[in-house]
Amino acid sequence: PHVSYTTTRYPADVMLQRSQEFYALLNQRRSVRFISPEPVPREVIDNVIRTAGTSPSGAHTEPWTFVVVADAEMKHKIREIVEEEEEINYRQRMGDKWVGDLQRLRTNWIKEYLDIAPYLILIFKQTYGIHASGKKKTHYYNEISVSIACGILLAALQNVGLVTVTSTPLNCGPQLRLLLRRPANEKLLMLLPVGYPASDATVPQLTRKSLDDIMVCV
Amino acid sequence: PHVSYTTTRYPADVMLQRSQEFYALLNQRRSVRFISPEPVPREVIDNVIRTAGTSPSGAHTEPWTFVVVADAEMKHKIREIVEEEEEINYRQRMGDKWVGDLQRLRTNWIKEYLDIAPYLILIFKQTYGIHASGKKKTHYYNEISVSIACGILLAALQNVGLVTVTSTPLNCGPQLRLLLRRPANEKLLMLLPVGYPASDATVPQLTRKSLDDIMVCV
Ligand SMILES: Cc1cc2nc3c(=O)[nH]c(=O)nc-3n(C[C@H](O)[C@H](O)[C@H](O)COP(=O)(O)O)c2cc1C
Ligand SMILES: Cc1cc2nc3c(=O)[nH]c(=O)nc-3n(C[C@H](O)[C@H](O)[C@H](O)COP(=O)(O)O)c2cc1C
Repeated sequence: PHVSYTTTRYPADVMLQRSQEFYALLNQRRSVRFISPEPVPREVIDNVIRTAGTSPSGAHTEPWTFVVVADAEMKHKIREIVEEEEEINYRQRMGDKWVGDLQRLRTNWIKEYLDIAPYLILIFKQTYGIHASGKKKTHYYNEISVSIACGILLAALQNVGLVTVTSTPLNCGPQLRLLLRRPANEKLLMLLPVGYPASDATVPQLTRKSLDDIMVCV
Repeated sequence: PHVSYTTTRYPADVMLQRSQEFYALLNQRRSVRFISPEPVPREVIDNVIRTAGTSPSGAHTEPWTFVVVADAEMKHKIREIVEEEEEINYRQRMGDKWVGDLQRLRTNWIKEYLDIAPYLILIFKQTYGIHASGKKKTHYYNEISVSIACGILLAALQNVGLVTVTSTPLNCGPQLRLLLRRPANEKLLMLLPVGYPASDATVPQLTRKSLDDIMVCV
């Protein structure tokens, strides 16, 4: 069945103000690789993931699993897997060009934040689903849907003053899936360490493209 | 160079409240396929796209182009291309299973909103960039990055009371790219009609998975 839909209607000046404020909020987001060990209220993490779960998805398949890791030992095991693979990535797999493109970010394979951040959120895409009957269920556009959900999650984190770095640990998916006992239909898409920024956190000085560089009007 | 980074620090109760309010806001988002022809303030659209442009991207490549179509004739040409391809998609390409999976959404190949919505936002991913020297620049993870930006865009639209439907017009990319004179490195990822909901808008009655179904704690 279909149901009627309405949404809050704001006057034009309020819309404009809300759009400016939301832009100002999100424009302060940066990928932060220095995270404080201070604890973060658990319920806030729950709400942020609830929010990500409101994302649209191809044919409403909701093809996402958010694994929240708070356990220190498990975080350390994740760090060991990621650092081992990332060292090979940087030294061999990525090639000089990719490593060069990352130079100004000063990223490398040492990921202290994997031990230090109070929470790691590992986002898995469900490449297919399983019906009650055991039959496979197609998950149309699952990677795009889960990435959209990740965008909403990033907005939700920013909205509460938490930071993260969007990372895609190359070649670590299979090992992390086994470590976290996720089923075979789930593939790791993103790993987000979450917390407050460290008091001495720094970020690469980057500029963003201007509106004219990203928008075309017809 | 690197610069120090701080962010607004909220007390725990404020964080919790902000996380609840943002969840409540985004949980009201639905894909709306009945859009009002009423005009929408142009500056709001600019700000929403500015906000999407704050998204993270692999190696800070910002691999996105947002084409905003307000011209009635151009919208109609887009509709013709999309409906022609979508009819073939539904009748032939998608197969009975996919069409069956969409049945409860009651979607089909007729897309009136493409004429009616005051704005269409076509989101292109730049599959590679071009250096000033003319050399190709690799865009790591461009589809994931642009999808994350789309998630942020959806949040920004919801925040101002506008609606859209996230659509991925299958097989329409090449024709729409030529119609809109976009370069060969750009590929259509998403098409979002944007406006206020029609006064008689309906949406399929769907439920979302509960937190327990999408979150795993370790
Ligand atoms: C990647 C992606 C592709 C989609 N493609 C279409 C589409 O082509 N046509 C359409 O009507 N809806 C499309 N949708 C919208 C979904 O059907 C919708 O998000 C889902 O049914 C859940 O409903 P909700 O967005 O109202 O929560 C798409 C959504 C996503 C995320
Ligand atoms: C899909 C994707 C993958 C990324 N992968 C990594 C990564 O593996 N390691 C890392 O340190 N940063 C990673 N980043 C973060 C980008 O480097 C960062 O978003 C970009 O430099 C822009 O900086 P900002 O997020 O502070 O605006 C990734 C971002 C995206 C969107």
